[in-house]
Parts: sequence; structure tokens; C-alpha cells
Amino acid sequence: MSTAGKVIKCKAAVAWEPNKPMVIEEIEVAPPQANEVRIKIVATGVCHTDLYHLFEGMHKDGFPAVLGHEGAGIVESVGAGVTEFQPGDKVIPLFISQCRECRFCKSPKTNQCEKGWAADSYDVMALAESRFTCKGKKVLQFMGTSTFSEYTVMNQMAVAKIDPAAPLDKVCLLGCGVCTGYGAAVNTAKVEPGSTCAVFGLGAVGLAAVMGCKAAGAKRIIAVDINPDKFEKAKVFGATEFVNPKDHNKPISEVLAEMTNGGVDFALECVGNVTVMRSALESCIKGWGVSVLVGWTDLHDFAARPIQLIAGRTWKGSLFGGFKSKDGVPEMVKAYLNKKVKLDEFITHNMTLDQVNDAIELMKRGKWYILSPLTVMSVIGSKFNSPLFTKTLNLKNKWRQFAVQ
Amino acid sequence: MSTAGKVIKCKAAVAWEPNKPMVIEEIEVAPPQANEVRIKIVATGVCHTDLYHLFEGMHKDGFPAVLGHEGAGIVESVGAGVTEFQPGDKVIPLFISQCRECRFCKSPKTNQCEKGWAADSYDVMALAESRFTCKGKKVLQFMGTSTFSEYTVMNQMAVAKIDPAAPLDKVCLLGCGVCTGYGAAVNTAKVEPGSTCAVFGLGAVGLAAVMGCKAAGAKRIIAVDINPDKFEKAKVFGATEFVNPKDHNKPISEVLAEMTNGGVDFALECVGNVTVMRSALESCIKGWGVSVLVGWTDLHDFAARPIQLIAGRTWKGSLFGGFKSKDGVPEMVKAYLNKKVKLDEFITHNMTLDQVNDAIELMKRGKWYILSPLTVMSVIGSKFNSPLFTKTLNLKNKWRQFAVQ
Repeated sequence: MSTAGKVIKCKAAVAWEPNKPMVIEEIEVAPPQANEVRIKIVATGVCHTDLYHLFEGMHKDGFPAVLGHEGAGIVESVGAGVTEFQPGDKVIPLFISQCRECRFCKSPKTNQCEKGWAADSYDVMALAESRFTCKGKKVLQFMGTSTFSEYTVMNQMAVAKIDPAAPLDKVCLLGCGVCTGYGAAVNTAKVEPGSTCAVFGLGAVGLAAVMGCKAAGAKRIIAVDINPDKFEKAKVFGATEFVNPKDHNKPISEVLAEMTNGGVDFALECVGNVTVMRSALESCIKGWGVSVLVGWTDLHDFAARPIQLIAGRTWKGSLFGGFKSKDGVPEMVKAYLNKKVKLDEFITHNMTLDQVNDAIELMKRGKWYILSPLTVMSVIGSKFNSPLFTKTLNLKNKWRQFAVQ
Repeated sequence: MSTAGKVIKCKAAVAWEPNKPMVIEEIEVAPPQANEVRIKIVATGVCHTDLYHLFEGMHKDGFPAVLGHEGAGIVESVGAGVTEFQPGDKVIPLFISQCRECRFCKSPKTNQCEKGWAADSYDVMALAESRFTCKGKKVLQFMGTSTFSEYTVMNQMAVAKIDPAAPLDKVCLLGCGVCTGYGAAVNTAKVEPGSTCAVFGLGAVGLAAVMGCKAAGAKRIIAVDINPDKFEKAKVFGATEFVNPKDHNKPISEVLAEMTNGGVDFALECVGNVTVMRSALESCIKGWGVSVLVGWTDLHDFAARPIQLIAGRTWKGSLFGGFKSKDGVPEMVKAYLNKKVKLDEFITHNMTLDQVNDAIELMKRGKWYILSPLTVMSVIGSKFNSPLFTKTLNLKNKWRQFAVQ
């Protein structure tokens, strides 16, 4: 019996309030309205941004919500005016839209469409409207996507149709982490052939950044993490050298400067820690070094000394790897199918949606997991709010402390 | 009688120690050694960086010194191995060198030659060696140039030969301020035709930045200063709109966002104040806005929220406007002679070298002057460590305070 046009009752993990475990509930998912698509979610990752919203982000108006923004699924039904999608299409929900009409979409310089939730709902991290209710209450769709649900509803400008051959329990990783890291290297930093790169933080985003550096032709890719267990995996993705800040009693930027005759050409911060952001900038060579903020935090300012930019460094940031979402994700799926991008190597094992809180707890301890209503996969993860970065940096500059957590 | 090969005794303004007036002394200027050029200085500007070194920079090991780094003169004699220069050549001493041999000189991406004083004498702001003595003591050559002297000695890699038709009491401005501001727009920000720009601070550097934006084809050039007397002059250089932060009770970034439908494409900070640096970044449009640090300070960190970069803004810095010094300065002199770059309009009146302390005092109060051993010209100046920027910024974000002076 077709569910099109009807409310679907299904299972979802509802985050009722901050700092509390999510609750597996039966929610009602309304039919798609005009220009909307209802999607059966098949697999989803758990990203640090979910954890961040739940426990760190202080987005107190953003609840109750269904989290999850790294999923893949199958179109169940479409609303009026939707011609691009049909039931049965394999799709990836997108946390940044691509309307193709706004001045940002029309510019080749950016992927930051102004039509999505991010344009004006930053404090809530969700669209004002939602197609979810639970126990009579509206439940917000976190980042517009809400992939910790068996079904979700998205505006078609935030859905990517992908190759029917794509395995959803792998390509779901392209909904956030892998595109974010890979694109930060390729699209934002614009890593050059023969260059020397450093990647700070070897979670899924950092590993994807390593992979992006390699794809761009970097000669040296220095992987930096305080957990040396990550180095073996980083090698799989293309890292050529490995540095554990704990092995050194001086700032990591000095270690890298010594290794590279003055600093790296490109440094990607894939942690979301303002102290590491500073380290990454300081690790760049004067004259032309480019550092990119890839990790996310809004709890603190990042900072540096003016001379560090005046000496010729550039500081950039990357959201979703700079990919225009509807265009970029299908291309990355194809690259995976053509074995030009690795995805399987990120995955270690599976969990179920019922175990979502277990996955979040594991992530708190430095793991990053992928869930699915059917299967759940763990992903190599990183979270290092390391006292070591702070300690070593403070050796050099008395002003550095004030931007430290 | 030729002075070549002999010590020259001449007048110079010696800064014996920080926070004290300079003293006009008779100094001894040694003959040029191999690869060096001795220059009779004809005209020189007083730049805020001189004031900064003397009163704010806390470079306590950088004394005694002869300040001044914005001069023009005539070659008096040359040392062994110098074939590029001859006595009588008109030249501009350069505070950043261009050796043409190091990897930085060979890269088209940067002007930051690694052979000059700046590469390793940052704390002293001078070369280790000096050709000056006074009363039996070595006197440092500030920034390598020391243009507050009737004669100076420079390595030929830091001297630009300019068109013999150039009036030295005008083109001396190309030794620092005008190239710095103009190049920051043209070379570093790479201002685009049809774009919208904001220039913060309408001293000589800021006015030159306005001129650079215009030369690059900007459609709108918004001049920002807390002194509305500057606006008339800014108009001469190409500014199309004028904003006094004192006229508004909200952050200047919000004022500019309202004027420009979301923010400017390019924002140049020409003050040297970390709070204004933040304002300039925040005034840029998301997606592609580029902000450039042009003003100088090393007393404080600059800072912003990570989202401000992640949303697609780029933060850069510019030293000497990104000009490769020996190549760029003669080109700018030609541009002046061809009436493509204005210089005369920066100048209001003249002073003598004996009045150097008066000029410094005037600069402290927001004026910027040009001296010459013969004549001294005042230049439109700016110095706004404005409480207004701080006050208005703090309305919005509690974390903003810590980077504020």
C-alpha cells in the first residue's frame, strides 16, 4: 500500500533537550509539500556536529530536534512541482542547499546558498518549518536533514540524486565528513601538485583531507594527531609523514617548520579547536602559506598575531569542503564508484539506530560512528581538545592564551 | 672634492632610546662595502612605523638607531661589485629587499625576500650591521634604511633605481605608505572590476588603498574614518561613499552590511588596530569576502569567530603592498610620471629635518608628515585607536573583548 500523500509513522531518535540522551520515539512525518521530497533513510553517520549541538553548542532554542545530517536514502514520494526526483531514486540529503538561483549559487566562488536554514537560522541550526511531530509537539529538523529518522522530508534544493549503483551504507559518508575534508583540500585550500601539506586531526574529516591532498598531487602530507593509532589509517589515505605533538616539547609549528625548511604550503585544521587553528596557521610558511579552518566550533574566537598574516599567510575557512552541494555530491559518488575516492576504509563496524546514544558516548571519547536504521558503522574518529597544544603554544607567546579554551 | 671612499660626516636624527625625542647629531657614515650603495637622502616621509618603533613597539634592543624608511635620494658612491648603480642615480631605499635569488623572490606569490633584515631581525627592526657611528657608538639602521639622515648606506638588493625625471620630494612616498596601500588593494586583495570595497582608516596608506581600489575598477569604494575631515580628500582618490562610525550606534560591520546587501567584497584595514581588523573582516560578505590587514601592530592578537571564515571569508595580510620592491617601485614611479598614480595630493606642507620631533608629535595626534633634510611635507594622516570601534563591537559578542587593546 502506497504511503504517498499520507502521514508516515516511523522510528526516530528525538533529542528532547540539551545534555540528555536522545529517545527513540515514534514520530509522524508529514507528506512532502510543494518542492519537497520525502526520503526513506537507509544509512547515516554520526558526526561531531550532532554531538556539538547536543552537548556543546548551547543552541538551546534548537530542541526538540531529530539530529543527523550525514545520511543516504531512497525517495518515497514527492510534493507538487517536483520533477527532478521520483520515488525509488537514491539520494543524499544536503545540509547546505543549492537553489541555483541566488547570487551565491550563481557565483563560482562559493557554495553557500542563501536559501537554506544556514542563511538565517544559525542559532537554532534548523529550518523554522518542520514536517515532524511527536506526541503532539513540533520536532525540529536539525540542519534541515534529520537523518536519525527512518523518514525525513527535504526541500528539493537540498537533495542530491546519486548513481543508482551507489551503496547507501557507504556513500552516506559523502553527506558531510568526507566531502568536508576532501573538498577543503581540493576546493578551498586548492592544494597544488608538489606541495607540502599538514593535516591537523585524523578523524574522518582529517583523513578525507589527507585523501584530498593526495588527489591534488601534494608531495608531502604530514599527518598530525595526538593519537598515534591514527597514523596507520592516515597512511592508507596518503599521508607520508606522521607527527605526534606529544613527542615534542616545543610548539608543533616549530616542529613542522624544522621538518619543512620554514613551514608547510597548506595546513588544514580538522579538529574544531581554536588553539589548533592557531597552530595550523603558524605551521604555514611565510609568503604563501594557506591555512584552512575545517573543524567547527563557535564557543571561542580564533586568534593570531597580525604579523602572521602580514608575512604573507592566508587564512580561509571551508564549509562542506566548498562543494556546491547538488553538483558536488553526485560527482563524489561517481568518484567513489570509479575508485578515485575511498569510503570503505573509513568504516570499522556497524550499529543500529537504537544504539544511537551508545554511538554518541563513544564519539565523546574520540570515536565517530555511522548509524543506520538498519546498520551502523563506526568510523575512525578524532577529537582532541588537547592540553598539549595549549601548553606548548604558550611557551612562545604570552598573548596566545586568551584564545584558548 | 669627491667623498667616495671616505667617511662622511653629516646630520641625522638619532633615537638614542625609546620614548625620548630624537636628537639631531653629527654622525659618521662609512663608505659602502661590497655590494653596497651610499645614498644622499633628499626627501623622506615620517611613517607611523617610525613612531611605533620609538614609542609603542617595545623593540628595546633596537636602539640607538636612525629611523626613517620612506625616502628618496641620489647615489653618492658605490662599493665593490656594484654595477647596477652609479653616482648620480636617483634611487629609493627599500625596507624589504629583492635579492632575486631566494625561493621567495623566485616565487610569483610573494614579495618577502628572505635576505633582508626582516627575515631574522624582527625584534630589533634593523640589520645586525650598520655603517653609522655617533660619538663612538654604533647606531643601528632602522629597517635597514635610516632615511632621517643626510646619508645612508644600503645593500644594492634593497635599492630601487628610478626614472631620472622623478621629483624626489614626491616619489619618496613610494618608499612605504603609497605602495603599501595601493598594492594591498591591487596585489594582495586583488580587487575586481565592479566590486564593492571598504577602506578602514584614511591616512596616507588608506588613501592609497582607495586609489588602488579605484585603479582596479571597483564600483563602490566606501571610506571609513572617525574623522570626517578626511572624507573630502578620500573623494579625490576615488572614494564614492563615506561612513563615520561615530554617526552610528551599531557595529560598523552592520552599517556596511545594510549599505551593501550583506557586506563588501573587499575590506582593507589601514589602521593597525586589532579591533578594526575584526570589523573589517566582519564587514565582508560571506561566500567570497576578502579582508586584508595592511596596518601594523604587534602588541595584540587579532581575532574573530571561526564561522566568519568558515562562511567563506578570507583573511590576508599585506607587506609593502605585495610589491616585489626593486621591480615594483620603479613601476610606481613611472605610473606617477604618467599621471596614473597621484602623489602630490597626499602632501600639505613641508618641514625640515631639525623639526623631526615636531613631526612625530603631530603624528601622535593623528597627522603624518614627510621630512626632508631640505624640505618637509605633511601628509594626510590617520591614527584611530577609537574607543568607538570597541564599544560598538562589544554590543554584539561577549568574546570580542579579549582581542581589544
